Order: sequence, then C-alpha cells, then structure tokens
Amino acid sequence: MIHVRVASSIRKTRPVRLSIEPTTNPGDYEFSRDIRVRFVETDAMGIVHHSNYLAYFEEARVAYLAHIGHPFTAWRAEGLESPVLESFVQYRQPSRFDDVLTVHVHLALATRATFQISYLITAPDVRATGVTVHGCTTTEGRPTRLPSWLTELAAREP
Amino acid sequence: MIHVRVASSIRKTRPVRLSIEPTTNPGDYEFSRDIRVRFVETDAMGIVHHSNYLAYFEEARVAYLAHIGHPFTAWRAEGLESPVLESFVQYRQPSRFDDVLTVHVHLALATRATFQISYLITAPDVRATGVTVHGCTTTEGRPTRLPSWLTELAAREP
Amino acid sequence: MIHVRVASSIRKTRPVRLSIEPTTNPGDYEFSRDIRVRFVETDAMGIVHHSNYLAYFEEARVAYLAHIGHPFTAWRAEGLESPVLESFVQYRQPSRFDDVLTVHVHLALATRATFQISYLITAPDVRATGVTVHGCTTTEGRPTRLPSWLTELAAREP
Amino acid sequence: MIHVRVASSIRKTRPVRLSIEPTTNPGDYEFSRDIRVRFVETDAMGIVHHSNYLAYFEEARVAYLAHIGHPFTAWRAEGLESPVLESFVQYRQPSRFDDVLTVHVHLALATRATFQISYLITAPDVRATGVTVHGCTTTEGRPTRLPSWLTELAAREP
Repeated sequence: MIHVRVASSIRKTRPVRLSIEPTTNPGDYEFSRDIRVRFVETDAMGIVHHSNYLAYFEEARVAYLAHIGHPFTAWRAEGLESPVLESFVQYRQPSRFDDVLTVHVHLALATRATFQISYLITAPDVRATGVTVHGCTTTEGRPTRLPSWLTELAAREP
Repeated sequence: MIHVRVASSIRKTRPVRLSIEPTTNPGDYEFSRDIRVRFVETDAMGIVHHSNYLAYFEEARVAYLAHIGHPFTAWRAEGLESPVLESFVQYRQPSRFDDVLTVHVHLALATRATFQISYLITAPDVRATGVTVHGCTTTEGRPTRLPSWLTELAAREP
Repeated sequence: MIHVRVASSIRKTRPVRLSIEPTTNPGDYEFSRDIRVRFVETDAMGIVHHSNYLAYFEEARVAYLAHIGHPFTAWRAEGLESPVLESFVQYRQPSRFDDVLTVHVHLALATRATFQISYLITAPDVRATGVTVHGCTTTEGRPTRLPSWLTELAAREP
Repeated sequence: MIHVRVASSIRKTRPVRLSIEPTTNPGDYEFSRDIRVRFVETDAMGIVHHSNYLAYFEEARVAYLAHIGHPFTAWRAEGLESPVLESFVQYRQPSRFDDVLTVHVHLALATRATFQISYLITAPDVRATGVTVHGCTTTEGRPTRLPSWLTELAAREP
C-alpha cells in the first residue's frame, strides 16, 4: 500500500488516489500479453525510453478488457471514455530492442468513479511494475459512474 | 509526502523511493519552461495522450540542468547517464493541441545514489503534477555516486 | 521535380501526387522554426529516429500557418481537417540529442483539392529535406475544396 | 518507377534514390506481419497519426529480416547499422484504434551501398503504401558495403 498524508496547508492538492503496490509475482495477475520492443522505442542510452512503458501498459490493458468481453472499442461505441487520472512506474531493469516483454495485468480496485490496474513486466526477469488509475467520462468529458460489471469484477477480489 | 508501507510478505518488492508530493503553487518551483502541444501528441480522445507528460517533464528537466550550468550533454560527455527509476504523474485537467504548457521544475531530494524532481504543469490552470526519481550510472549501466554539485544543490532546501 | 510514370498494368495504384523536390537553400523558404531535439526522440543508434522528422515538419507547418494568420486551430474550429496524403523525407546527416534544428517551410503547390509543402532542416548544415502533400476534409472525413486563401497563396509563386 | 530530374542549377541537391512504386497487390510481397493499432498511435482527428506508419514499416522490416535468418540484432552484434536514407508513404485510407493492420514487405532493390524495401498495408482494404531506402554503416556511422547475402537476395528478382 502507498499511504498518502497530505499536509493540511496544501489545500489545492488533490489527494493521490493511487493506493496499490504491484507485486513481482506473475501468479498475482490474471492476464498477460507479450509485446516485442520496437526500435523506435529505444533511446540514445540504448534502452527502452521510460515513457514507452505507459504505452505497453495501455496495450496490455486494452487486450485484457477485450479478453474479458468488454473491449475498449465497445466502451467508446457506448459513449464512454476511460481517461488516466494517475500513473506510476517503477523501472527495475532496462529493456532493449527486440526484447519480448510479458506485461501482466491485474484489475485491482474500483470505487464508483475510479478503478486501478496494476502491471508487472517480465522478460522473464522483472523489468518494471506500475499502476494506472482511471476515471470514467462521457465522450464530452463529463465524469460518470463506472459500468456496473467493472465495479463487480473488482469486488471479486479476496 | 507519500509514505510507503511494504508488506513484509512481499519480499521481492523493491521499496518505492518516490517520497515527495508536488505542490500546485508555481512559487515552489525554481525553473519553468514553456512547451506547445504538438498535434502528434494528441490522441483519439482529442486530448494529449498521458504518456507525453513524461516527455514534457524530460524536456523541462533537460532545460533546467542546462540553466544551472550542468547540461545533460555534459553529463553524457563525462560518461554519466541519469536513468529514470520511478515516475509518477497526476493528470488533473486535459490538455489539447496547440496549448502552451508551462512546466515548472523543482529539484527536490537527493541521496548519495538518487535524486528526485517534482513538476507542475499549468496553462495557467493546473494541468498535471508529477515526480521522477533518478539514479546515476556509467554509460555501461553500472550504478555510481551522484555528482557532488547535485547533492549539494538538493541540500540547499529549507 | 519528381516525375512519376505509372505502369498501365498497375491499375489499382493511385498516382503519386508528390511533385516537388525541396532545395537545400534556406533562401527558398519563407518561414522557419527552431526545434530542440528531445531525448525521447533519439534511438539506440544514438541519433534522432527517422519517424520524428514528420513530427518536426508538422510542428513547423503548424507554426507557419499561425504565422500567416490561418492557424490550424481555426481550420479545425471551422470544421476542416488537413490530412497528410503523402510524405517524403530524405535524411542527409543524423541529428542528435539537444541539437537545435531549424525547420524551413515553403508552401509549394496547390490544386483545388490538395497542397504541397516542402521542408529543409539545417543545424546549420543540411540535415534533411522533405515534402508533405495534404488534402482538405470535413471533420467527418469527407473531401472538400481547399480554402480560397490557400490556393491564392500558393499561386503567388514566380 | 519514380523518375527524378534534378535541375542542374540545384547543385547541392542529392539525387533522390527512391526508385520503386509499391503495388497494391499483396501477392507481390514475400512477407507480412499483423500489427494492432495502439491508442497512443491515434491523434485528435480520431485516426492513426501519419508518423506511425514509419514505425509500422520498421516493425515489419525487423520481422522480415528475422524471418529470413538475418535478424537486425545480428547485424548490430556484427557492428553494422542500417540507417534510413529516404522514406515515402502514401496514406490511402485512415486507420483507427484497434484496427489490425497487415504490413506486407518486399525487398525490392539493392546496390552495393543501399537497398530499398516497399510496403503495403491492408486491413484488408488498402490503407497505405510506402518505400524506405537504407544504407549500411558501421556503429561509428561510417558507410560500408552491404552484406553480400543482401545484394544476392535482392538480385533474385525476376
């Protein structure tokens, strides 16, 4: 758990919602997707640029939602978007061109208005872990409740 | 502050280093850089894709280091790299094509082996806040101590 | 000029519209914009990845249109888009992290339905040249005529 | 064929090497790879940003070279790089988030110092065609001859 104490003097600060710490055990994740590193994703240090891990998380998240029968294209067809409210990445070992990364996905927590997904990237050693926090809005950007299947799914955790 | 409690049962988890929460007061930041949003940085939601904020942070960080007389190109010429170990972004309001974003930078904390930088993006309303944690390595990737000017600079804080 | 001969046997091939060859003389271009290379834009060869030149062209094209009083945001507000139909880049010398590139822009040719822009990138040696061909569509993607100011502007050439 | 006439007055212009026009017949290509469009690759027009097609070409080119037993990682291990000298893309129909694109690859032409690859993207309608021209350099960037297997392979064409 990442606990957050917000100093009362910082009034304008929005409390951090991120509240899970991803494990490094692949067995804790219900889905995974393999992604091969593209050359365009490397940088002049010879490794994957850190910003690309958010794209890897996204590709795996999209594949996970399709896998459980709720593809993101269907969300969008129903007029829903799922913007990222927060992201956290811990980079543990660098990845290189042509590496095949396994991105593990776990739907971790949902409230009525937000849900959290945690990620583990292995190859097969641990490369990175991370979390994204998502809201739900209409296509016009107005916040709305999560679909009920999503809150129910997240509630199934032990 | 973001406090971290790591469950003792998760042995392989590396403790999160991230330990600052960025404020939304521009006066708390010692440097800023304006960045105009490119069309390529938008996505099909019509807003800046969340992964680009890490690139904005990077551009402002590079400009800040040049501003204080320690350009990143000089680091690299001396055989040092400064890989990102952790990143955190809180997306508060979406940004759109052609927006001019002001990215505020604050060198926040340094230990002998890592330093942290916090960011605030305004336009002029608050768009995002974030933190990156950096290590220092040789160009071969071997961890090494931070340059002394950097630890001294971070120690100057009240 | 790039002349195109389409073999009559290749019926489904759409003729290439690209019909200008950019010069390497900055005096042939009416506008320029400086862009500093970001670290994220480099690749594991230690140079700017070739796909980023299209983003540099785009940033300079957007700045040029704003400079002549027809910002792209105004096009979009009027319900017009300007999709890229063709792109050509000749990479002459590699660029590196933190290089300041000057992207020169020349509005070269327009028909009723398309226009062409040529580009020269210097630093100050010649780094790249290129051309993009654009159409004009409604926001629903239906092809439409170019704004009259644009065809008139392109017609002003000697 | 794209024929090029260079005005003799433009002395500094390097002749365009690009000399093939890709067909829209998948049977003319010896290899293909499927790529699913990521959300990060879309833009505010709701379609794939044009710069990403160069990344799709690259991913397919890398897969093709691995398929014929000469993976790009082996080139790099032998101290060779294969920089892109020119690129051409004709965008025919827009692509959207989650589309599965089939990128067809054809090794088209080689000289002692350069080779050309043509591409066709279908889904299954024709989305784009393109060409990249490549040189061969040492890792220090010095031009060198192509590997003999490559010139022989390109010479096998009818």
